[in-house]
Amino acid sequence: MDQPNRIPVPFPQVTITDAFWAPRQAANRDHGLWAVYQQLQATGRIAAYNLDWQPGSDQPQPHVFWDSDVAKWLEGACYSLITHPDPALKAEVEHVVDRILSAQQPDGGINPYFTVVAPQDRWTNLRDRHELYCAGHLIEAAIAHHQATGDPRFLHAIRRYADLIDRKFGPDDDQIHGYPGHEELEFALIKLYRHTGEKHYLEKARYFIEERGREPHYFDLEARARGEAENRPAPRPLEYWQAHKPVREQTEVVGHAVRAMYMYSAMADLAYETQDPSLLVTLRTLWHDLTSKKMYLTGGIGSSGSNEGFTQAYHLPNHDAYAETCAAIGLIFWAQRMLQLDLQSTYADVMERALYNGMLSGISLHGDRFFYENPLASHGDHHRQAFFKCSCCPPNLNRILPAVGGLMYSQTSQEIVAHLYIGSAATFNLEGGQVTLIQETDYPWDGVVCMRFKMNQPLNFTLKLRYPGWCQEARLYLNGEAISIGDHLEQGYICLDRQWAPGDEVRLQFVMAVTRVYAHPMVKANLGRVALMRGPLVYCLEEADHLVPLAAIRLPREAGFDCQFNPDLLDGVITIQATANAVDLSGEGQPLYQPTPPRTQPVKMTAIPYYAWDNRAPGEMRVWLLEDCLPH
Amino acid sequence: MDQPNRIPVPFPQVTITDAFWAPRQAANRDHGLWAVYQQLQATGRIAAYNLDWQPGSDQPQPHVFWDSDVAKWLEGACYSLITHPDPALKAEVEHVVDRILSAQQPDGGINPYFTVVAPQDRWTNLRDRHELYCAGHLIEAAIAHHQATGDPRFLHAIRRYADLIDRKFGPDDDQIHGYPGHEELEFALIKLYRHTGEKHYLEKARYFIEERGREPHYFDLEARARGEAENRPAPRPLEYWQAHKPVREQTEVVGHAVRAMYMYSAMADLAYETQDPSLLVTLRTLWHDLTSKKMYLTGGIGSSGSNEGFTQAYHLPNHDAYAETCAAIGLIFWAQRMLQLDLQSTYADVMERALYNGMLSGISLHGDRFFYENPLASHGDHHRQAFFKCSCCPPNLNRILPAVGGLMYSQTSQEIVAHLYIGSAATFNLEGGQVTLIQETDYPWDGVVCMRFKMNQPLNFTLKLRYPGWCQEARLYLNGEAISIGDHLEQGYICLDRQWAPGDEVRLQFVMAVTRVYAHPMVKANLGRVALMRGPLVYCLEEADHLVPLAAIRLPREAGFDCQFNPDLLDGVITIQATANAVDLSGEGQPLYQPTPPRTQPVKMTAIPYYAWDNRAPGEMRVWLLEDCLPH
Repeated sequence: MDQPNRIPVPFPQVTITDAFWAPRQAANRDHGLWAVYQQLQATGRIAAYNLDWQPGSDQPQPHVFWDSDVAKWLEGACYSLITHPDPALKAEVEHVVDRILSAQQPDGGINPYFTVVAPQDRWTNLRDRHELYCAGHLIEAAIAHHQATGDPRFLHAIRRYADLIDRKFGPDDDQIHGYPGHEELEFALIKLYRHTGEKHYLEKARYFIEERGREPHYFDLEARARGEAENRPAPRPLEYWQAHKPVREQTEVVGHAVRAMYMYSAMADLAYETQDPSLLVTLRTLWHDLTSKKMYLTGGIGSSGSNEGFTQAYHLPNHDAYAETCAAIGLIFWAQRMLQLDLQSTYADVMERALYNGMLSGISLHGDRFFYENPLASHGDHHRQAFFKCSCCPPNLNRILPAVGGLMYSQTSQEIVAHLYIGSAATFNLEGGQVTLIQETDYPWDGVVCMRFKMNQPLNFTLKLRYPGWCQEARLYLNGEAISIGDHLEQGYICLDRQWAPGDEVRLQFVMAVTRVYAHPMVKANLGRVALMRGPLVYCLEEADHLVPLAAIRLPREAGFDCQFNPDLLDGVITIQATANAVDLSGEGQPLYQPTPPRTQPVKMTAIPYYAWDNRAPGEMRVWLLEDCLPH
Repeated sequence: MDQPNRIPVPFPQVTITDAFWAPRQAANRDHGLWAVYQQLQATGRIAAYNLDWQPGSDQPQPHVFWDSDVAKWLEGACYSLITHPDPALKAEVEHVVDRILSAQQPDGGINPYFTVVAPQDRWTNLRDRHELYCAGHLIEAAIAHHQATGDPRFLHAIRRYADLIDRKFGPDDDQIHGYPGHEELEFALIKLYRHTGEKHYLEKARYFIEERGREPHYFDLEARARGEAENRPAPRPLEYWQAHKPVREQTEVVGHAVRAMYMYSAMADLAYETQDPSLLVTLRTLWHDLTSKKMYLTGGIGSSGSNEGFTQAYHLPNHDAYAETCAAIGLIFWAQRMLQLDLQSTYADVMERALYNGMLSGISLHGDRFFYENPLASHGDHHRQAFFKCSCCPPNLNRILPAVGGLMYSQTSQEIVAHLYIGSAATFNLEGGQVTLIQETDYPWDGVVCMRFKMNQPLNFTLKLRYPGWCQEARLYLNGEAISIGDHLEQGYICLDRQWAPGDEVRLQFVMAVTRVYAHPMVKANLGRVALMRGPLVYCLEEADHLVPLAAIRLPREAGFDCQFNPDLLDGVITIQATANAVDLSGEGQPLYQPTPPRTQPVKMTAIPYYAWDNRAPGEMRVWLLEDCLPH
């Protein structure tokens, strides 16, 4: 096991100052959090905590997963309050916390559905009913609330709930030998352990992870106990819940994508806390399976809507891509945890890919409209919405955006590791004292990153700088002097171990060219197609920029590219322009079938960053473009 | 109006002797008719006429469209008996006719569903319940039975039913002002008029056609009379039934494809009988809309499964093509009727296209397994079935196959028109006497057609020979002497007006080369794709002939073709072989995304006739191949 004491640098220690993420965070603060809060209220999700729903009443019936939506919003609101105090938001946060606490039952439980709708069903259907998942999100919210306000009352209340679960579930005869149907409680408990130092929370997380997938399968036993006929097939195969095998025997990512990401994240946390190399072996195998066979170019994952999850290797359809926003967020969580366990730049490459593309596409530029599904092509009928019936994604965006700074760095007492390049100021407490690292960069539009150190006296530590996987060519200067990158590369990081002095300056130049990307030929949907990337950004064509249908456009293999920053377009983006060939679709009088191929003509093609699509007039979109032509 | 006295030469006057259609007819006789008959029995469709179904009984409940399946089978069986007497089949035919007649009600009605299941609902839901459609098929069956046996009892009985409908429906106050929800009765009544000379049948057909689509819409009135709420939307738009506008105001083919084809066929019959030029204008407009925007290369029509019918222009997806076998058959019916009204080779071209491809694909080589849908590409999961719950297609094939000879010719008293080239002997009664025309040809494998005449004395008449639309180059010899085709072409027919003598020989050489076909560029599914045809046959690739997935194969634009007849393959077919490029799909270790395009390698590509696919091991199929590469 590598470097057990490496920890992520929490976002409160990182102030983002750039022109890319800071506006996204502001949009979330000014619009996103408020828009989602309004929907939580309008749909009855907050009022559910009044516990006054009755059969036949006019109020909407509380749903099994509503708590998780409220909790994720609370977590995001609290994160926002940490960096940007806001009395109005704080007042709503406290109002919601009050409502939640008022709904706590004498035994500690908090869950309106299982209080007023189906109390008799509590803990009888862990597989389908989301109660442990909701509990996990409430735990995360309570920790965030404690961090934001210092007020322990929500945390204390939620610990009573966590303790109830701790007593109720476990290996003893009088305990339930089950585990969550939707994983998430596992890493929430580890977070609670880290926050409180109470080891029994870690142990219970370990129990849930270790018990999962063992035979006889708990979900089957539980179904039988509910009186469901023996021969009645489960509604889905156990793979859907990653409960088909003990976790260490799992070698392929399967089932519901968000569930899978949350489970692997919890496994990574457990591996970290317990220094268990067998878990790391499993996680590396699963990571390889995911990233070499089942991940969209955008970092979107889970190609099928029917199971909101994974299908066979290389099945990555574009128009029908599910690629749920929450799954991209889950992948970011997992990647970040792998970086603490197993420092290799490939985890950060994937984290960055999902962050700038598959996750960021999930929220409108204004911050208040959302994608649940993130296809890589659209006929023009896929649009952002204010909310969803199953609305996990909007509050998940609410909580990850304020915390993006927390993804940038790891540290030990003797090293600083930079995974992401974002204009910012970050503070590190190292063995010899405190260091502030200023990043100045126009990333992701430009690959020049200037880092300066502020500290009181010279300090010995290792600075590790990720060499991005997308970059073909880079230069490094230390206080103006060129340094050979190749001499310092380890696992994809440029490692500079020296005595650093106040005012030292590291200048990175990652050459940011347009890259043509080709998919593995087993990805049928992309045969004969090419995608464009520039730095970490995946690009796409949108109908708004073209006079011909996108299906008519083919990019010649030898086409050159013209990149320009447009400050007024889509909150400021670099577009990629090229001269492409377009089939002439005009000829109304042409026969339906003829022996002559359709005429083509040159057209100007403009690609925009994928994350920014569907922020203008509705229309077609596609990432993977037909290419003129394959070599013989 | 052109040549009102042109009539199709009925199939009993045409004996097919070739190596292509004769075996298909034999397969239908030896396997197809018996296989369908067995299914009609096994599913209770014959027993339904016992009228002993009761609520709660074990027997399957008669369905509203079962009569049509039985009737089409009867019609096909009778046609087969006309050319190939078979006592065993005759006995089953008489058994079924007996069952049907035993079910006739005192008022003349024959319809088990409306006798035992829902007698109170009779004629209250013409839109959805198929009773007039079923009556039409029974009329066609009874005429066929009369032609085959000379026994008038089924015809007499069915005329009582037709007379009941004639009294019940019409413009008078005591009549129902409705029309069939599924068209077909209209042309059945015209057939009955032609068979009996009773003009009131023609008049009732005219009524049904003229009344259709007039406001207030009958289907709405009828729904209201059933007590359906005013504001309840109809289950489908009126276009589904071609009932949205009076027929002469219809300019686009819409709705359910089989319904549309049967309606246009009836309109063509009515135009022919009434010499109404306004109907011909409408039909030409509809024909142009269909064949220039909404027809598959195979002559399959109706691209969408959701309405079993038409969508917008140029929407012709390949994998999801519905292209119902019955719709191709309906198109053949319509095309053949247009040829009598409006002699232009384009109708025969389309008729031939549907006959050799979209229709013939519907039946297995052995004759006893069927396609309902005829997609132009398959992932390997689309296969022929023995029967279907809604099983209109198998008995429709049963009835068209014995009658293929009836599509070959039209005649007037002074002309013979050859629409199709099939090895055969046909007899024509012309003004001056009888002529027998012998066609010798290996069509569709070879374009040489030798025609010889047998007659007692020289006769003056015009021989019109279709110049096939697929043919780029042809030669014509009369008694060994070359004739300029260009000098004799009229509306796509080579017109030879002369005195013909016994033993005269016409030799046609239609050069039958492999043709690359491109779709109109508005057909998105086929952008960058090419299809191969040879003569009238559309070709496809099938997995069975290839070691690489079909999606990996690209046909270079300059590839040459090698055509060979394989007597042992698929009952004997000409295959088209070429060297194509295939993406190398081997590299398991390749990354999911990379900047290098996939490698390609040359592969041998083998195309087989589309009609013959899915007669070997199940697997992928595609008609439209990716082409290497588009010109710049």
